[in-house]
Amino acid sequence: MKLATVGSVAFDAIETPFGKTDKIVGGAGTYIALASSFFVKQQSLISVVGEDFPQEVLAELESKGVDISGVEIKHGEKTFFWSGRYHNDLNSRDTLVTELNVLADFKPVVPAQAQNAPFLMLGNLSPDVQLSVIQQMQQRPQLIAMDTMNFWMDIALDSLKETLKHIDVLIINDEEARQLSGVYSLRKAANIIREMGPSILIIKKGEHGALLFHESNMFYAPALPLEEVFDPTGAGDTFAGGFMGYLAAADRIDFDNMKRAIIAGSALASFCVEKFGTQRLKEVTHPELQARMQEFVSLSTFQL
Amino acid sequence: MKLATVGSVAFDAIETPFGKTDKIVGGAGTYIALASSFFVKQQSLISVVGEDFPQEVLAELESKGVDISGVEIKHGEKTFFWSGRYHNDLNSRDTLVTELNVLADFKPVVPAQAQNAPFLMLGNLSPDVQLSVIQQMQQRPQLIAMDTMNFWMDIALDSLKETLKHIDVLIINDEEARQLSGVYSLRKAANIIREMGPSILIIKKGEHGALLFHESNMFYAPALPLEEVFDPTGAGDTFAGGFMGYLAAADRIDFDNMKRAIIAGSALASFCVEKFGTQRLKEVTHPELQARMQEFVSLSTFQL
Repeated sequence: MKLATVGSVAFDAIETPFGKTDKIVGGAGTYIALASSFFVKQQSLISVVGEDFPQEVLAELESKGVDISGVEIKHGEKTFFWSGRYHNDLNSRDTLVTELNVLADFKPVVPAQAQNAPFLMLGNLSPDVQLSVIQQMQQRPQLIAMDTMNFWMDIALDSLKETLKHIDVLIINDEEARQLSGVYSLRKAANIIREMGPSILIIKKGEHGALLFHESNMFYAPALPLEEVFDPTGAGDTFAGGFMGYLAAADRIDFDNMKRAIIAGSALASFCVEKFGTQRLKEVTHPELQARMQEFVSLSTFQL
Repeated sequence: MKLATVGSVAFDAIETPFGKTDKIVGGAGTYIALASSFFVKQQSLISVVGEDFPQEVLAELESKGVDISGVEIKHGEKTFFWSGRYHNDLNSRDTLVTELNVLADFKPVVPAQAQNAPFLMLGNLSPDVQLSVIQQMQQRPQLIAMDTMNFWMDIALDSLKETLKHIDVLIINDEEARQLSGVYSLRKAANIIREMGPSILIIKKGEHGALLFHESNMFYAPALPLEEVFDPTGAGDTFAGGFMGYLAAADRIDFDNMKRAIIAGSALASFCVEKFGTQRLKEVTHPELQARMQEFVSLSTFQL
């Protein structure tokens, strides 16, 4: 198993200026696993769903090389449900409903075959839950990446800071980086956050691209300007999944490869937002992905 | 004369979270001429000041190769004065005072020696005034670039649309591009705006870099993440001046050279914001500028 991921598998109901969906399948774990499956043929997803969750969705993940033995199915309970409405600019959203359901007392169990995975991705969950996954690994993974959010900074900052000590890569957005560091300049924030534990920081800036900080190196990955962003749900998780999948497949984590991995994640995220939920991500072919990654090259290449 | 620029020469009083200034020298024309002087040794500035404007500032511009015979000095009148206060994030500001003074009835006169300049930069002024400058050129310049702002879209949209028909490069920020086009997607906005006249569009996104659109080509120039932005005043004009100065000196306006010109403008803008007003820009040496431009290379270069 190259990669183990812990993250929610959920139902989402989404409203954007372009339309709305009934309950569709979402969740950080789902997006991460789908995105990384473009690069990694053997991975493990650790999550929990209710008995209302469609078996065929799990089967579809399995068909993409995702081991789902770590996805607990809780009988008599319901799957995590989130509903949100995006504003016209699609850069901000209101949460309409959050029903934690099975996620409320989620205690992830890492299956034996995932305990030696060299790459570990911790989707956005409580920092205690994230730490419990790290502690179940038989040997310290080569690379541990995690996502988090302002909510945990507000209510569980001490736990968050403890978990940060155990990871290598933190993947957050610019607002979160500013809140966590207490400074506005992202360059200063990067230094402060890397003092907290992770040696590598990725700051996602949505339509403005992403920044990668490692040692004294900085990389500014552009975002592809799109004709239309249809539904941004899952773009950040898709980015993280693409990043980790690419690195796990390459098995080399030098700075040049991290840059490529960010382009891979950005390319997959640019597909993700083209349709509702996971729909577009499931259609993307490898040649399409290669072509999209080349678009990033022509978008940002110059020579002095 | 390689380049002619029309733009304000002004006094600014600036408050940022880091301090405040008394009246210091500013104005779009000043920043554009200073920035382009790094590349162009013969240029003409067309502007107007009052008798309160310090002669030594004009002499300093002259020493950098700026012909100031087109800067009218109106005796008995006062120089344009703007005062503003930046918010904590430095991305937004309140205007405290605007005293148009000599700018109220500014009728620029292009001096004879500038009427054949192959490069023309129209700083942010009323679109009628900008058009009057184009009409004074003896022959159609090779490249005409202009800046504008939401104010003119609000009160003089028809005039603005007329002037846009006569130019090649429009340089505006993302908000302005959205207002002018009426759409949110910058990629769609770029198509709509280029239907209005300019074949080349540059969208400035501040700390998020800049986008260049020409024919079917797109280029995403990163912005250098800075430890501290001290005073953003003039950064946009410095960017435009660096862009036009670089192109005028290179005398070649293919897409690859436009990309280099944007990096040159971005590098100069990154210096501009390090101190109040024009102070830092006046100190920058050519080796410093070359080194900064190289930082942009390492910031954004990757290979798949």
